[in-house]
Amino acid sequence: MAKNKKQVKAITSMSEDFAQWYTDICLKAELVDYASVKGFMILRPYGYAIWENMTNILDGMFKKTGHQNVAMPVLIPESLLKKEGELVEGFAPEAAWVTMGGSDKLEERMAIRPTSETMFCDHWAHTLHSWRELPMLYNQWCSVVRWEKSTRPFLRSREFWWQEGHTIHETAAEAEAETEQQLNCYADFCRDALAMPVLKGRKTDKEKFAGAEATYTIEAMMKDGKALQSGTSHYFGDKFSRAYDVTFTGRDNTLQYPYQTSWGASTRLIGAVIMTHGDDNGLVLPPAVAPIQVVVIPVAQHKEGVLDAAYALEQRIKALGLRVKTDDSDQSNGWKYAEYEMKGVPLRVEIGPKDMEKNQCVIARRDTGEKYFVPLEQLEEKVQALLVEVHDNLYESAKQRLEENTFAFTKVEDVKAAMEKHTCFAKTMWCGDEACEIAMKELAGVSSRCIPFEQENLGEVCPVCGKPAKKMVVWGVAY
Amino acid sequence: MAKNKKQVKAITSMSEDFAQWYTDICLKAELVDYASVKGFMILRPYGYAIWENMTNILDGMFKKTGHQNVAMPVLIPESLLKKEGELVEGFAPEAAWVTMGGSDKLEERMAIRPTSETMFCDHWAHTLHSWRELPMLYNQWCSVVRWEKSTRPFLRSREFWWQEGHTIHETAAEAEAETEQQLNCYADFCRDALAMPVLKGRKTDKEKFAGAEATYTIEAMMKDGKALQSGTSHYFGDKFSRAYDVTFTGRDNTLQYPYQTSWGASTRLIGAVIMTHGDDNGLVLPPAVAPIQVVVIPVAQHKEGVLDAAYALEQRIKALGLRVKTDDSDQSNGWKYAEYEMKGVPLRVEIGPKDMEKNQCVIARRDTGEKYFVPLEQLEEKVQALLVEVHDNLYESAKQRLEENTFAFTKVEDVKAAMEKHTCFAKTMWCGDEACEIAMKELAGVSSRCIPFEQENLGEVCPVCGKPAKKMVVWGVAY
Repeated sequence: MAKNKKQVKAITSMSEDFAQWYTDICLKAELVDYASVKGFMILRPYGYAIWENMTNILDGMFKKTGHQNVAMPVLIPESLLKKEGELVEGFAPEAAWVTMGGSDKLEERMAIRPTSETMFCDHWAHTLHSWRELPMLYNQWCSVVRWEKSTRPFLRSREFWWQEGHTIHETAAEAEAETEQQLNCYADFCRDALAMPVLKGRKTDKEKFAGAEATYTIEAMMKDGKALQSGTSHYFGDKFSRAYDVTFTGRDNTLQYPYQTSWGASTRLIGAVIMTHGDDNGLVLPPAVAPIQVVVIPVAQHKEGVLDAAYALEQRIKALGLRVKTDDSDQSNGWKYAEYEMKGVPLRVEIGPKDMEKNQCVIARRDTGEKYFVPLEQLEEKVQALLVEVHDNLYESAKQRLEENTFAFTKVEDVKAAMEKHTCFAKTMWCGDEACEIAMKELAGVSSRCIPFEQENLGEVCPVCGKPAKKMVVWGVAY
Repeated sequence: MAKNKKQVKAITSMSEDFAQWYTDICLKAELVDYASVKGFMILRPYGYAIWENMTNILDGMFKKTGHQNVAMPVLIPESLLKKEGELVEGFAPEAAWVTMGGSDKLEERMAIRPTSETMFCDHWAHTLHSWRELPMLYNQWCSVVRWEKSTRPFLRSREFWWQEGHTIHETAAEAEAETEQQLNCYADFCRDALAMPVLKGRKTDKEKFAGAEATYTIEAMMKDGKALQSGTSHYFGDKFSRAYDVTFTGRDNTLQYPYQTSWGASTRLIGAVIMTHGDDNGLVLPPAVAPIQVVVIPVAQHKEGVLDAAYALEQRIKALGLRVKTDDSDQSNGWKYAEYEMKGVPLRVEIGPKDMEKNQCVIARRDTGEKYFVPLEQLEEKVQALLVEVHDNLYESAKQRLEENTFAFTKVEDVKAAMEKHTCFAKTMWCGDEACEIAMKELAGVSSRCIPFEQENLGEVCPVCGKPAKKMVVWGVAY
């Protein structure tokens, strides 16, 4: 179909159908395209640019704490994957297997990496010698493949892009500190770059990473009240070191096993941003990761001097080190406004003949819709201040929503009733038994999201079995 | 074996065994490690850091000319790969095939991408609508898999890291201009970042990319006289557009096929740097891509004030925006000097008690071995000037070697004799027949590297068949 002029895009409203609203944004903000390969996704330029901004910030944070990037092979021989029993049980059922190389059948099949603990251990097994070389603080940016049954863009996909940090340390205490440091790194990143508050805690044994001694998580609340696990950090003790025979000569000249961690965050964070800040007009991006932070729209651009005035504003904003674009295309203003709202651009600067007469421009905020008439000499100051305000407002709104939708309960039936009314985070005490965790799922439809670091005493007993409570757990409905 | 103190590393000399010298550097400069997967490589932190510097520079160049990054799926269904006949013939024999997803046999096997023209075409087939959306200037950073029979680190590996640019344009002329622009981009990058002169030209039909209408190449000469293809840029016409049904509504409202290009450069460039600048003491890195541009060595560091003096120099060099490191480990000076020579660090700054008395430091160049006594107040000036000199000297030396080892011939037996004496680049005229190209391989052991853009008239006839010559070709022995 010939389609020269673009149409203003409509999306399903959030309240009508949250899942369809989400998919509409993914496609209409041009973040992703479905690939010909079922369950796989294509990151289009706009979606990739958001990911690129995220990776640049995270990579800088990792490097500041001494981490180094490496690249490991994409394929893992089955025998190598099998050396650690729990890991292979967790990942083999969803691995994609390469069985042919060219026209030859391989002697041993190989998995496309679902995660790379095995490769890092194998590498360390023949490169680590002395305690002097520890810690080894490695990170890898790559994609991984997991053969999921049902998929959704960013949230669950057969391929996704991520970073996987892998470190080994001389002592257990150092490895535990690394695990905690990296979880905090993710939480800080979510707060400062994504304007997204998270709940920090430890996963129950049932929910932890296959093969880990402990898994720590950050959990965020989406606008529909559901929980999104947004980053995890694992402590392995010396379990993998022993399984893969990674050893070093210690300070006392004896052969020892190093202690290990891994931690990962992925393109899932783009899904988190959509469902934390988006609205019925489309995406709403926090300024730190927005590919375009400010869009300049020349109004009545055919009039003399308007385009030049717009370009001049663009140059001044660019000089602040911001990502700015002027849309001088022949689309209508209405189309342009809708387009950059759909794409979640934090600020829109308009300038037309009337503004020029008054030596001003108009700045519109994506988050609140507020408009400001700004004298041109105050442009830089106002743009910078507004970007900070947008970030802070997004964060505060999300924080308020998280707090207003987190409730404490002492009875299972109250959890059930609350969830039936509106999906939320439910805090209860817990005895620590997996049986009660399973019962919560059956009785109230919730899974444990984490055992928060910040514990509260909500009572003395487990609401399921009535036995003495050990910890407070946050329950929810997970993506 | 307990090994607390590191030993000074010895490598094979270049003149004794060039191939072994190359492998020694790859391993002893800690660029790569062999993986448990035959034919695959691991990029260790130092090797990856070089690649990261290369990618940052190239990515900046691509973005300046309007290219946008995207991410395509790692798997390509066989039916999709088969739509363009020449491409599948070229790549299917060396594809790695996924046949199982989890425990299920796939209905159709999928190749791990050997190159992604097919995926880009498939994506464009359902996203491109109008001439207004053209050109689409895309790039992808990823790894690709090709099941090579024999492998060498960086040069030929079953997996390698690269970027693949893919663009579509409204007209053939625009696509051709893009092909040329990107080839020039690679050549400029090699000159300005890698200090490596290259020969620009067009590949013969025999040597061109499977499915391309024309392939352009940059060819560099390694220290053993062999040729390394260091980047290629392809023009496809509308061949793939037609095969994959990529269409758009043109300015005249008719349905048209866009014209397409692709272009790639890879971790092979690290191999190029090793064999262009390296010597018997190890790697020699051009400053622009060196992970450490300046290393500071405190001499007699146990003496009072020495470490602080070294850190002060480090801070001053860091303030210039340079990548600098102080080695304050307890290794000997001899070990440190050898280690950073092996790693190709362009400048070494030494400071000890005697230098402090004289208010000076010593700067040693990796490329020439020259040492300079530098008054401390001239540190910034001298470091910056020397880094430029190192780059220029590396480039000029490589250029001189290229020129001194490129010869013009009018007889096949002269080419053969020259090659038997020392591998070089041989320029001859050529009639354009593939039969003569094949004969050159059989008679003189050389393959055509390219038809240089800068043509010379070396005679009227083809040295093989004696028929009228059409073009001048450069022949060589390729990696």
